[in-house]
Formats: sequence, structure tokens, C-alpha cells
Amino acid sequence: MMFQIHFLRNIRRFSSSTRQVIRNVKQTQQLQFVQRTLHNVSSAHLQNVKNVYLVDETSEISQRHIQSGSNRFTCRTYNCGELRLKHVGERVTLCGWLEYQRMNKFVVIRDGYGHTQLLVDDKDIEVQKLLSTLPYESVIKISGSVVSRPKDMINPRQSTGEIEVLVSSFEILNKAKEILPFNIREFQKAKEALRMQYRYLDLRFSEMQKNMRIRSQFFMSLRTFLVNECQFVDVETPTLFKATPGGAQEFIVPTRFPGQFYSLVQSPQQFKQMLMAGAIDRYFQIARCYRDEGSRSDRQPEFTQLDIEMSFTDVNGVIRLIEELLHYSWPECLPNLPRVFPRIAYEDAMETYGTDKPDTRFEFTLHNCTNALKNNENLVCDNFGAYFLVFPEPYVILSKAVKERFSKLAQKYSESKFLQNKVDNIETWLIKLSRLLGNSVIEELKIALQPHNNSAIFFGYGNRDEVLSLLGLIRLEYVNILEEQGHKIKKDGMHPIWITDFPLFEKGDTPGSLNSAHHPFTSPHHDDVHLLESSPLKVRAQAYDLVLNGNEVGGGSIRIHDPAQQERIFKMLDIDKQFMQHMLDMLGSGCPPHGGIALGLDRLLATMLNTKSIRDVIAFPKTFEGRDPVSGAPSPISEHDKKLYHLEIVDNKS
Amino acid sequence: MMFQIHFLRNIRRFSSSTRQVIRNVKQTQQLQFVQRTLHNVSSAHLQNVKNVYLVDETSEISQRHIQSGSNRFTCRTYNCGELRLKHVGERVTLCGWLEYQRMNKFVVIRDGYGHTQLLVDDKDIEVQKLLSTLPYESVIKISGSVVSRPKDMINPRQSTGEIEVLVSSFEILNKAKEILPFNIREFQKAKEALRMQYRYLDLRFSEMQKNMRIRSQFFMSLRTFLVNECQFVDVETPTLFKATPGGAQEFIVPTRFPGQFYSLVQSPQQFKQMLMAGAIDRYFQIARCYRDEGSRSDRQPEFTQLDIEMSFTDVNGVIRLIEELLHYSWPECLPNLPRVFPRIAYEDAMETYGTDKPDTRFEFTLHNCTNALKNNENLVCDNFGAYFLVFPEPYVILSKAVKERFSKLAQKYSESKFLQNKVDNIETWLIKLSRLLGNSVIEELKIALQPHNNSAIFFGYGNRDEVLSLLGLIRLEYVNILEEQGHKIKKDGMHPIWITDFPLFEKGDTPGSLNSAHHPFTSPHHDDVHLLESSPLKVRAQAYDLVLNGNEVGGGSIRIHDPAQQERIFKMLDIDKQFMQHMLDMLGSGCPPHGGIALGLDRLLATMLNTKSIRDVIAFPKTFEGRDPVSGAPSPISEHDKKLYHLEIVDNKS
Repeated sequence: MMFQIHFLRNIRRFSSSTRQVIRNVKQTQQLQFVQRTLHNVSSAHLQNVKNVYLVDETSEISQRHIQSGSNRFTCRTYNCGELRLKHVGERVTLCGWLEYQRMNKFVVIRDGYGHTQLLVDDKDIEVQKLLSTLPYESVIKISGSVVSRPKDMINPRQSTGEIEVLVSSFEILNKAKEILPFNIREFQKAKEALRMQYRYLDLRFSEMQKNMRIRSQFFMSLRTFLVNECQFVDVETPTLFKATPGGAQEFIVPTRFPGQFYSLVQSPQQFKQMLMAGAIDRYFQIARCYRDEGSRSDRQPEFTQLDIEMSFTDVNGVIRLIEELLHYSWPECLPNLPRVFPRIAYEDAMETYGTDKPDTRFEFTLHNCTNALKNNENLVCDNFGAYFLVFPEPYVILSKAVKERFSKLAQKYSESKFLQNKVDNIETWLIKLSRLLGNSVIEELKIALQPHNNSAIFFGYGNRDEVLSLLGLIRLEYVNILEEQGHKIKKDGMHPIWITDFPLFEKGDTPGSLNSAHHPFTSPHHDDVHLLESSPLKVRAQAYDLVLNGNEVGGGSIRIHDPAQQERIFKMLDIDKQFMQHMLDMLGSGCPPHGGIALGLDRLLATMLNTKSIRDVIAFPKTFEGRDPVSGAPSPISEHDKKLYHLEIVDNKS
Repeated sequence: MMFQIHFLRNIRRFSSSTRQVIRNVKQTQQLQFVQRTLHNVSSAHLQNVKNVYLVDETSEISQRHIQSGSNRFTCRTYNCGELRLKHVGERVTLCGWLEYQRMNKFVVIRDGYGHTQLLVDDKDIEVQKLLSTLPYESVIKISGSVVSRPKDMINPRQSTGEIEVLVSSFEILNKAKEILPFNIREFQKAKEALRMQYRYLDLRFSEMQKNMRIRSQFFMSLRTFLVNECQFVDVETPTLFKATPGGAQEFIVPTRFPGQFYSLVQSPQQFKQMLMAGAIDRYFQIARCYRDEGSRSDRQPEFTQLDIEMSFTDVNGVIRLIEELLHYSWPECLPNLPRVFPRIAYEDAMETYGTDKPDTRFEFTLHNCTNALKNNENLVCDNFGAYFLVFPEPYVILSKAVKERFSKLAQKYSESKFLQNKVDNIETWLIKLSRLLGNSVIEELKIALQPHNNSAIFFGYGNRDEVLSLLGLIRLEYVNILEEQGHKIKKDGMHPIWITDFPLFEKGDTPGSLNSAHHPFTSPHHDDVHLLESSPLKVRAQAYDLVLNGNEVGGGSIRIHDPAQQERIFKMLDIDKQFMQHMLDMLGSGCPPHGGIALGLDRLLATMLNTKSIRDVIAFPKTFEGRDPVSGAPSPISEHDKKLYHLEIVDNKS
């Protein structure tokens, strides 16, 4: 056996075998402090053995590969969440963090799997002395025997609550500092900024452990379904690429060629379409993507998406794939996901919820009364719409503070009018309203509103898009306030919905110009191709989004595969054909019809786990400013780098 | 049923059901050209259906999720490599590329899975006419009946060689251009530059299909072992990070903060160590990493590594993990991997093979004769070494051209002397040699060389490191020449070997300064800690490399977990402690002993699959200059980007 020799001033107590070693070593007068090694290391006896290959099979760890999953190749025999009554009598070795101790005798050891209670023998003065000064969060290794707890000491809330370990050997592997930035105690959780800066401490909390481990398991299940059940091919595509016209701001990466830059991909869109042309007909990748969106809360400059593309498919094919994929992969510990998700067209979602990412955990939908008002010449404008939203008893909470909050919201919408009222008697209220809208519409409104005495009524009219957006926001806000006040409004569980038939284009920045609503490779809806010239804004796309509990968690489309149609769309979008020649060439080389989707895995996980922020499902998130809170990046570069990349810094404020 | 309506000028022939549709559509006078859709699309009938969720379960593709893996969610019933005798009589639908046709009648359709032969009925004049002008590589969809081939037409080399499909319906999904940059024919493969530029064509070759699909399967198996068998946690770490002191040149990424940059990580080293402190005690990630090495053949600016870290382990633990991992994941179609790999210490590898990545598929090892010469005052210098390398009969191929090649190689080593001779009689040769080396050493050399009449002898002496490197290179080169000349030297199969006990430091650029041989977080060997002050260059590290068939495919180490020792190493390396304070804080917060490894997956796969270049196992590789051959990236940036990132370009030549 070889022994590791360390100059650690904090080692004060050793197991009996270690003490024997100390005596041996002290005799050689080499050292003052000695720590028993984790294991012997084989390499030493290979020294000076020329051209002879030896394998050390005597190592403690080598022998352990017959053990169960989490302990293979380590010096522990169990993790701290593993021991049960059936292990009573077994001699075990555990490693972990000193979480708590009482009377230098009752000790709790913790690792990422759970907690185990240790018991130090009254006679073991040495260990007790050691414990008396050992800071919490120090890393220890213990051996001992598993014993059952006395009946009155059983802790049913703890997975290891029926046993404890009688310590026979106790080692300090690494002593922690006396004072850490915060303690690992659920009831005294630190502020987020501090948690982020010392993320390695924050990760020790059981909630972060759960989030990280569920994320990993979920990803594994996604892959298992795609590869093993459906023969998808996992292909890694480059992240250093060329700028994509339109779309989000992309990070740039200077090269040694003066003035020439890569862009960091915002999605592998072009590559996955090339894979389709390349006969990789079922592609997926859990891909890192990048967007420089500046400071935005709950966004990350780098994020992870499940990127999927399939040949010889259609909207239904992609939608069914994702439904089956998520059903297969869904963690058992979470509320069930339906086997098939409802679908709603974009236009209907806007009409009903005032948003294209509706939270369908509750009703309270918008009501269209445009027809009732459309003959009123005083009101009607371009793209006119009138909608109301009603919350009946017992949901009338329209206090002054709430009303002010909504009025502030409404101020951002300058092309629409907004009314909010606590209505005791609908008849009386309508009469008041008639002063504003004219008498002629009252009868029609009465029919539309039905008998809504004792209601909170929100009423918007004017520019239809604005009215819908505003009422959509109020629908969410009002329900949040109701929930804060103790009403249970949102249904539990998972409520996914597909939004289909998005518009292909949206208005561009200059009059008459068009932008892609999704991206320029999206196929128009078959039925609307004839509208491309005459009414492009009315053309629907073969595009779909997946929304879960009001969060957009994915989106995709069937792509254009006909090079002539693609060229036509580029032209309509004023995208320089030469810039995209490689895509046109690709489509003309024999490219199958294809489509796909990307799921935003950070947001999906945050929604699944119902965390406050996506940062809670990311191991090392950046701050809302895009800073790495652990290292402080970004930071200044060296003169060497400036020269190498032909850069000078201009401190303009853009 | 809904139908997709297209303006495709190249559609000339339709199945009977399609023709019916055309008639219907023509009656409506809407269109000139119609193509039958792949499938109906559900969304249309959701239009104007307010707040009612409908799911279309009538779609052709929706029904298909009961099918086998590769065909689920598509409009085909089988892929082109799937049909066998047992399918005879079945009506099938296939999609793929028109690979070949003869007499407008015998057709071969191809996809990523294989080839299927189609037979067009003599009476089906319409399809024959269509085929007569259809360019190869067009994408088609056919339906038909599976029939067995006549006995004399069976092709045993083709997986589908026993059947063919009698075509009853034939559709063109996307017509290819008449002339493509190159044809998909094994016997007329294009030059690499062209293959790279049109990678989507290149990917259609069966070899690239095999490489991509094996890569995906191999990655899946690696993950399955780590997650399912060993409870590793897959954690994604950021790529936008802070510059790491020392090490390779890192790409930089400007931000909206003037003069402040991220660096693209060259490895997740710091993050994975933080995960260990964060109780994610078994971490892995298939991670994208970045290095700006300028123009270097067979390197890529972005590459993929399997990154692993484990707590409570040692050198043996990591080595056994990797051996079991690779054994579990090894593709069945490749030569077997041994269950346990031999190990050799760095020093021994250098002595024996003249390199730390020895190709152990053949012998011909170096022989040390330093002792025989070390008393010769005329020869001996600092760090003196003398070695020879012998190739006996029948391996004597020391032609003038070969000798010149080696002389050129030797010129790069200015501090050593080099001799190469075809030796018929060793006695005579030694007498000649004595004129150079003096008589006294001849007897000793004679013993060392043994009776090596009829040999090629390479002899080097002088600076030991130079001699070893030179003879190590000649060992490889000479064997390559032998193989080119028809000798079978390299053993078949997979020959992995661990190189252990690397030095901790190497000499820095300035006298007396030190660099890390691996990285500054590497733990020194327990037995050598006492040499840190006195002889740092003699300190071995707990570091190991994995070498396969002469290629370095991985490397790792046990890390320092004691903050005091880490601080000491930083100081020895002249690394500013403040720059690394977050790592020292992390170690001091209670960090378990830990170690890990990274496998370079691109190189590993290239070695496994024995490809000419790592580019052959990467879907979209960059050129040796770092250019993306498809899009031409990198490219100039806009004025908007320059302003946003506070940059000016300086066209200096560094």
C-alpha cells in the first residue's frame, strides 16, 4: 500500500490504521503531518519498469466497480441518501459535508443525494475533540456500522430516517473556512446576487440539486426516445458561423483575418436544413445558441434548445412527434402531461386570450363586441376592435391601487381607449356608457355582456392589436392579484397548447416592407400561397408554437423546399439573394420536404419545475446584465489580443 | 382531405388520385399546376373556431406513430434500406433520391439507410416519360408492391438485394438541378475542398452517413453508461467566460460594455471543479470547446470533448471508469477494445518510443546506450543521451530518398547528432563508428546492439530530449514507408494505452520560470510534494493521457483540493492570485478531493473509424484556415455592429 502525504495543518485525528502509518512515517523523520490517502496510487511501481505494462488491480477503487451506480469508482460504499433498514449491520463508508453536529456526538453528513445521521461513541474522545472545532461544510469521510434508530428517533421525512451510522473511523478530507458567504440552511436562504456569486455553495441546496438532476434525467430521456425509439441522429453543428440577415442581434467573434468576424449562431437553422438535403433525415441536437439581447430579465445570452428536423413530414408529423417525445420523457415526479395537446389557431388565440402564448390554466376569456360598435363613426378607426373582459363575483377586487396599476399599463397603448369599472348594476353602467358610445349600441352590448351585475368589467376599443394586447396583459395581471389575495384560480398541473397558423409576415420598419414573423425559411400555408402578391400580411405560415402554462416553450415550422419559392420569399423580405446563395443551391440540389421545431429547454424546465426564474434551472447563469457572477466576466482584453485580432476600442455610447 | 397546392413547373406526372384532384382543382380555375400534398394539414378547419380545441387524428402521418423507428411521423412506410423477402406482397411507400435509372424502367432509389431497386411497368408510359428527363438526385416518393427478384438478379452485397418494388404511384417531391457540383458516386469522389463547400451533397455518400450515424450512436452509448449505469449528471456549463491565464489562445467576444470581452472557453475546467464543490459529485458533459490556434491542419477552432469529473476518487478510479465506459459504448461494427488498457509512465514512454503518444501497434522500440558513452568527454553535454533504433531484415529500405527525408527531419534538431546506416556487418560498422566515438565504447555498444547484421540502424546522441523526439518520429515515419512498400507492420485492431505520471511543470519562456505541463489545477504526485521547492521540474503530476493507435485521445488529472497547495502552485507559476481568487474561495468552501478527464471525441472517432482526417467525422468542419466552407465565414461586420461593440478595425499585420 502506498500512502498520500500531505502538509495539512487541520488534520488532528486519524483512524487506527492511519495512526500506524503516522508512526511509520514519523520514524523516517520526513514529515510533521500526515493524512491517510483516499486510496493507493498505482503509478509509483511502474517507475523504471521499461516497456512493461502493468495494471494495478489492487486499488480500493478498482475493486469497487461491482458496486451500485453512484458509488462506482469512488472510495465510498454508499451515498448519503441510500442507507435503509436492510443495511443494518453492514460496515459502510460515506463521504460528504458536515451539515450539523450537536454535543460533538450527533452528526449529520450531507451530499447531493441526501443526509445521514452519524453517532460518535461516547468513548471516542478524539473524534469528539475534532468535531468541536471543525467548521460546518468541511468535507469528511467516515466508516462505521449501520444501526437502526430507536423507535422514537425515527424520522419519516428523511429517506435515511430509520437508520444511523455508528462511526468507527473519521477523516477530514478538506476543511472549510470558519465563515462562508452564507449557510446551507433552507430557512435562511441568501439573496440571489450572493447565491449566484458563490454558485458552488448554492448548488448544495437540495432544491438546486433536484433541479440539476431532473434536468439531466429529462435530457437523457429526450435523447433515449429520439435515438432509440425513433432513430434520430444526434449531429453537432458549428456555433462559429456567418451572420444571419434579420432576426436577433448576434454576438461576433473576431478572427486573425483583419476585419473578419464569425457570428455565434442564434440557432442551427441553416445547418439542420442542410442535413435534410444531406440525407440525415431525422436530426436532433441539444444545441447551445446565442443572442445578444442586452440587459433583459429572465433571458440568457447563451441558452439551450432541443433542435429537431425531419424530412418527409408535415405539421401533424412534427406535432405528434413532440407530444410523444414529451410524454415519454416527462419526469415521474411532476404532474402528468396530457398525451395529446389541444391546438388553437393564432387568430383564435389572440381573439380569446389577447396573446399568442395563452395561459390556459384559467378561463376569463376576452369577448369581441366590435360588431356592436362598428357603425359608430365617432369611434371607428383603421383596424378597429372592441373587446371586454369580465370578472364576476366573487372576483371583484378593483381597488384604487389595482385600478392605478392597470391605468399605468393602459397608458402605453396610445391608439386605444380603456375603461375599467366595478359594476353593481349592468343596466345603470350601460346607460353611463351610452354617453360615451352613443345610444344605438347599448342594446347590442347588453346582449353581448349578458346579465353581469356585480362584476369587474374591463373594456377596450380602438386599434384592435393594442386592445387585445392590453386586455391579454390585464387578464394575466388580474388573476395574479386574485391569487395573491387567496383566490385559487389557476388549475394545477400541466396545460400545454399548440398555437398554429401564425402569420408568415409582419410589417417591417419602413412602409410597405415585410419581415418574417418566424424566419425566412418558413413555408407559407398551402391555402394562402395565392395571397403572396395581393395580401402578404394575410398569408398564414405552416408555423406552430408550443405553449405550456402561459410560457412559450417551443416553436417551429415546415420549411420551404422549392428553391423558386424560397427565392421569391427572400425577394419579398428584401434579403440579398447572394448572401443566401448557399441555401438556394442546397434546395436545388435535391432537398426533401422537411420541417422541425426547437424547444427552449431552459424555459421548459423552469415551467415544469415552477421555478421563479430560468436561472434556477441553469448551473451557472449570467446576471440580467449578461455578467458571469462567479468570475466577473466580461473583462478587459490584453494588448496582445487587440493586436492579434486587429481591434481598437472606441468608448462611444451607442 | 386537404391538398397542398404548388406552382412547380417540373411536375409532369401524378398518381391516379392526384389526377383526380387536378381535375377537381382545374374545375375551380384556380391553378395551372398541382402537386399532391405529402399529407393533409389539420389547421385549416380550426379557422374561425373560437376557443375550441381540435386535434386532427385523421392525418396520414398521425396514424403512423405505430410504425417502426425511422418511419414514425413521416409519409413513408419503410426506409430504403429496410425491405426484405418477408415484406414480399406488402404495399409500401418509399421516399428518397433518384440514384440511377436504366431504360426509364429500372430505377434505384437511395436514402441515408440504403438503396432499393424499383421496377416501372412497361405499360406505365407516363412514369417512363417522366423518368427520361428527371435529373439524378431529384427527391421522389413512390408507392408499390414488394416482389422478390428473379434468382439471377439477387444482389447479395445489398441489404435489400433480394427484393424490388413494382411502382404503382410515382411523385416528384423536389427536382434537382441538371448539373450538380459533383455526383454521388463512390468511384468518382470529388476533391476535399469541393466536398466541403457542398457538404450537403457530400453527406449523401454512404461513408459519411456511416460516420455521422456511428458518431451519434456512440455518443448515445456514452451517455447511457454514464447516466443510467453510473448516475452521472449531465450539466451544461457556459461557453462565454473569462480568459484563463496560460494555455491556448482563446477566442474573444465583445460585449456592449466598452472594452469588455468574454472569452470562449477552451474547456469547462473551472466550472466542473465548482460543480464538485457544489455536490454534483459525478459530472459529465459532451462539451463544445474553442481554441484559436490559427491555421493548423487537422485541428478545428471548435471541437467536442467528453468532459468528466468525479469526487472522492483517484487516478485508478478515473482510469477504470474510462475503460468501462469505452468498453460499454464501443460500436459493435468496430474491432474490439481490450477490457483493461496497459499503462506506462511518461518517462518510460519517452525512453521506449521517443514520444508521449506511442503507437503500440508495432514494436521497433528505442534502445538506450547513454551509459556506454557517458564517459566520453568529447560527446557528453548537459542532459546527454544516446539512443539507437534498429530495423532488421527484411525491413531494410534505406534508399537514398528515404535517407534524405530523415536527414531533413534531423536538421531541425540542432543540439544532437544523427547517423543512419544500412549495416551489412555490424562489426565493420562499429569499427567505422569508433573513429567518431572512440575505441573505448565499441565493446559496450557491441553488447547493446547484439548481432544486428543486415539492419537499418538509426543512431542519435546529444541533447536527450532532441534525440528521443527525432528517433520517435523516425520510428513512425519508417514504419509508414514500410507499409507503403507492402510490409504489414501495424497490428490490426485497437491498441489503447495509458500514459501516467506526467511531469507537473515544464520550463517557461524566461529562465527559471515554470509553466504547467497540464494545467495549474493539477495535483502533484504524493511522493514528489517534497520536491516542489528543490526540483520542481522533477515533480510528477497525478496526470494521465489516453492514447489510441498513436493518437492522443484524452487526458486528465486529479486536481488540487487544498487551497493552500493551490495558492502555492499559482505562485510558482507566477499566476496572479487575485485573478484566481474565485477558485481559491471555492476550494476553501469545503471542496471534496476530485479528478477527471476529457476525451477529444473528434479525434477519438477519427481514430476509431480510421478516417484520413478528423473532418470526416464532423458534419460541418472548418478548413485548416478556420473558414466555414459552406457560408464563407468569417466575414466583415456592419457599421452597426462596430458601434454596438465599440470596435474599430486596425489592419496591422501581427
